[in-house]
Amino acid sequence: MKSSRPAAPSTNHAPTLKLVRLAIDTYHENVVYLHRDCEVYRTEGFQALSKVRICGNGQRILAVLNVVDDDRIVLTDQLALSEQAFNNLELEEGELVTVEHAEPPASMNAVRRKIDGERLDQEDFRHIIEDITESRYSKMEIAAFLVASGRTELDRDEVLFLTRAMVASGERLDWSEDLVADKHCIGGIPGNRTSMLVVPIVAAHGMLIPKTSSRAITSPAGTADTMEVLAEVNLSMSKLHDIVRKERGCMAWGGTARLSPADDILISVERPLGIDSQGQMVASILSKKLAAGSTHLLVDIPVGPTAKIRRMSDAQRLRKLFEFVADRLGLHLEVIITDGRQPIGRGIGPKLEARDVMSVLENDPQAPADLRQKALQLAGRILEFDPDVRGGSGFAIARDILDSGRALAKMNALIKAQGAREPDWQLGKLVLEVPAPDTGTVTEIDNLQLARVARFAGAPMDQGAGVELCKKVGDPVSKGEPLYRVYAQFPADFKFARKLCEQDIGYQIGAAEAVSQPFVEF
Amino acid sequence: MKSSRPAAPSTNHAPTLKLVRLAIDTYHENVVYLHRDCEVYRTEGFQALSKVRICGNGQRILAVLNVVDDDRIVLTDQLALSEQAFNNLELEEGELVTVEHAEPPASMNAVRRKIDGERLDQEDFRHIIEDITESRYSKMEIAAFLVASGRTELDRDEVLFLTRAMVASGERLDWSEDLVADKHCIGGIPGNRTSMLVVPIVAAHGMLIPKTSSRAITSPAGTADTMEVLAEVNLSMSKLHDIVRKERGCMAWGGTARLSPADDILISVERPLGIDSQGQMVASILSKKLAAGSTHLLVDIPVGPTAKIRRMSDAQRLRKLFEFVADRLGLHLEVIITDGRQPIGRGIGPKLEARDVMSVLENDPQAPADLRQKALQLAGRILEFDPDVRGGSGFAIARDILDSGRALAKMNALIKAQGAREPDWQLGKLVLEVPAPDTGTVTEIDNLQLARVARFAGAPMDQGAGVELCKKVGDPVSKGEPLYRVYAQFPADFKFARKLCEQDIGYQIGAAEAVSQPFVEF
Repeated sequence: MKSSRPAAPSTNHAPTLKLVRLAIDTYHENVVYLHRDCEVYRTEGFQALSKVRICGNGQRILAVLNVVDDDRIVLTDQLALSEQAFNNLELEEGELVTVEHAEPPASMNAVRRKIDGERLDQEDFRHIIEDITESRYSKMEIAAFLVASGRTELDRDEVLFLTRAMVASGERLDWSEDLVADKHCIGGIPGNRTSMLVVPIVAAHGMLIPKTSSRAITSPAGTADTMEVLAEVNLSMSKLHDIVRKERGCMAWGGTARLSPADDILISVERPLGIDSQGQMVASILSKKLAAGSTHLLVDIPVGPTAKIRRMSDAQRLRKLFEFVADRLGLHLEVIITDGRQPIGRGIGPKLEARDVMSVLENDPQAPADLRQKALQLAGRILEFDPDVRGGSGFAIARDILDSGRALAKMNALIKAQGAREPDWQLGKLVLEVPAPDTGTVTEIDNLQLARVARFAGAPMDQGAGVELCKKVGDPVSKGEPLYRVYAQFPADFKFARKLCEQDIGYQIGAAEAVSQPFVEF
Repeated sequence: MKSSRPAAPSTNHAPTLKLVRLAIDTYHENVVYLHRDCEVYRTEGFQALSKVRICGNGQRILAVLNVVDDDRIVLTDQLALSEQAFNNLELEEGELVTVEHAEPPASMNAVRRKIDGERLDQEDFRHIIEDITESRYSKMEIAAFLVASGRTELDRDEVLFLTRAMVASGERLDWSEDLVADKHCIGGIPGNRTSMLVVPIVAAHGMLIPKTSSRAITSPAGTADTMEVLAEVNLSMSKLHDIVRKERGCMAWGGTARLSPADDILISVERPLGIDSQGQMVASILSKKLAAGSTHLLVDIPVGPTAKIRRMSDAQRLRKLFEFVADRLGLHLEVIITDGRQPIGRGIGPKLEARDVMSVLENDPQAPADLRQKALQLAGRILEFDPDVRGGSGFAIARDILDSGRALAKMNALIKAQGAREPDWQLGKLVLEVPAPDTGTVTEIDNLQLARVARFAGAPMDQGAGVELCKKVGDPVSKGEPLYRVYAQFPADFKFARKLCEQDIGYQIGAAEAVSQPFVEF
């Protein structure tokens, strides 16, 4: 169509406009603002949400059009660009630019082929990810790509192509060591703070484990949220490097935006849409780890009736996909399928989870055994990445590091290096005890419902909010005994959390024989 | 999750902000602008593109977040809304509002089920279309819905559900007559201006045919663009009503935004994405016609190697889908499958097409025979909607109305009623004659390439720009004889159109026997 032609020198019917920067952050979507009375808007017949091309002085970008009726935002002889768009165009304010109809970026043809059910090749994914990274896609176009690739799943070669394209889209850290370990859980299990135990154990052994941690997106706490109870987590990349060099590990957040930047952009659309596909998940996780310089990765896939993965067959399929892609990209990857029937540890929420972690590190006899056990199991598997560790002996080494207090010492060193925060263990002052409705045995705990209650109560924004589990699956209970306590700081949060518990306490009480069996050896 | 809870009374951690209106037209997407230093932005941990809920004084809307770094746009104690969002919230500037995380609208669950390949029911479509109409969907969410429903096609019941939901989303005109006729072509054939002949013929017969016309979106001219050469087309709904009452017909644009408003919103996303599905097309066309009060509709499906529909089997499948949905919604619908091998008439572009139309109405012996023939065929079929017209006699009645000059008289009456414009038949002053490269017979004309050349030349914005065909399929030509002429007003347009012709003239010259056969009796 008309707009697919090459950029024209400005002519009398393609009037020039003066470029201005509008300080609106549209997050990787180029947006252009034109005044409704601007000549080019009237004559070119632009539609709302039109894709347009802006050219000036040899530079050009694609952008989505917003129309403005306010002279304070943009004048009729001006063309305003959102922050990202302005930066992408790389021109100065006041320079003259033209604007004309544009077709979608060329790689949208591949997206349309994907919508039609075709299989895409490496070049297709390379072009798509390149165009996404360069902000040539609108949010609508990204959504179309995500839905089209989630709809019937990418095949495993396509996931490989996508992962490779995502790694290539950004920078890649090089730690100049042969073994750079990492672990990753696909999520969905509240209280599952094993990273905060695995990192000190593995680093104490001397293995490099620079763990960039994430904040909670839809869960009641992420590793970064929990670590933040104890230490600063928002570190610069250079500080993070210094800590890793000295301590062999870290648990920090940030500095990852330049690693697999396409991943952040895709997630920014995936998250509000609430869609996820296994192919996208594998590409997202592996591209970030590869870009972060990991050479060895342990992936934790919890399986349970209320976990993300609910059947062993699905977990095995996901495992094969992880292995296939990692093998072809030179990443040593192992998958561990774990018991995802219920939350791990006692606490759900930043302070409660930090307390669980510290009690395990301090070898407190009251420390939650399941958290300790799972962390040792994971750490042991990671230690076996070390060629000098005999297969099967990782668990014992990990246990020795933990029991001897070396893991705690390493944790304290990491906290000090990242910047210790004054410990404040005060939980939310509003407390709800949820009693057992019957006498019997806890047969099931709903991960999703407990996570929801903790979030309603205020986690992770309120560090002291959350849920403390008094009973776990298999525990006998008498009617009226507390199953868990909800902590909240603010009356509104408390009210909503209580209402949610009234709808569904998230526990099943039954006969001892009815306890659901773990899906995996644990 | 936390945000799915009901709106809370404002608490000390949900600070209130002062509402301001920001005159940015984000077209059916509610956008909220918060200052980066605004307390709620910092404490709530919003992400870019977060979906948020804004509440105040019992009102609430969902919106997508944009972050602002400029005090001139929004202050740190303010919350600014785009025009549509402000109107939807229905509060005054300065009123206090709260903002909090929001989940996607509830009907997004149905969209996610559709992504997973499930079949949706009437209630699902009703909720989706209601949420879209009420601006609860972001553009990303609309894109997800469109891709999910286009991906493997909606089944025919789903198309019915969607159509019904779309009609219910807006107003519905009632002409208080038993027979309100309309015609619709699915598009793709340049020069196909039959509506401008069918409407005068049918209205001259006395049948009601209130045709709201569209402007070109991706084609070189729509009926509204072409009619605008002769008369005003941008009429108010009340003026349109007056004209229809008096003249039994009209060809105007506008006033349709309240008819099936969901259709306009869906198209605003479909168009920039360049995706289309037959199910969406049928729902879009039929919902608009039903909302416009049509009782009888003739749908024209052109078939040809460069038409939208390329195989007779596809045309038949589309026909059945139209019939199925229309029957269940009480719309009398007939489908006519027509010859779409080449452009209709001689001209492509507003003035050139208006000239063709007027020459047919004036019974000029030089008038393009194919345009006349096709218009009579369509008008004849519509006239047979009249119970008093004997089956098979419509064509003769239409021809009689045209030959007698009654159609021309009606056209002149319509032009006068809508507001006649001073006729100006001056074509673009820059002319390119494209000669036949060989001697032989025209065997094929590429609809897409000819439309592209006309658009590059400036149509429809420049009324006098476009393409004039000198030869049609089956015509013998000698090498060097002109195949068509390109008219442009501006040198840049002329240059680009010429370049396009140099790449591909869009004509095939061959042996007389190689002329492609029409796919249909014509």
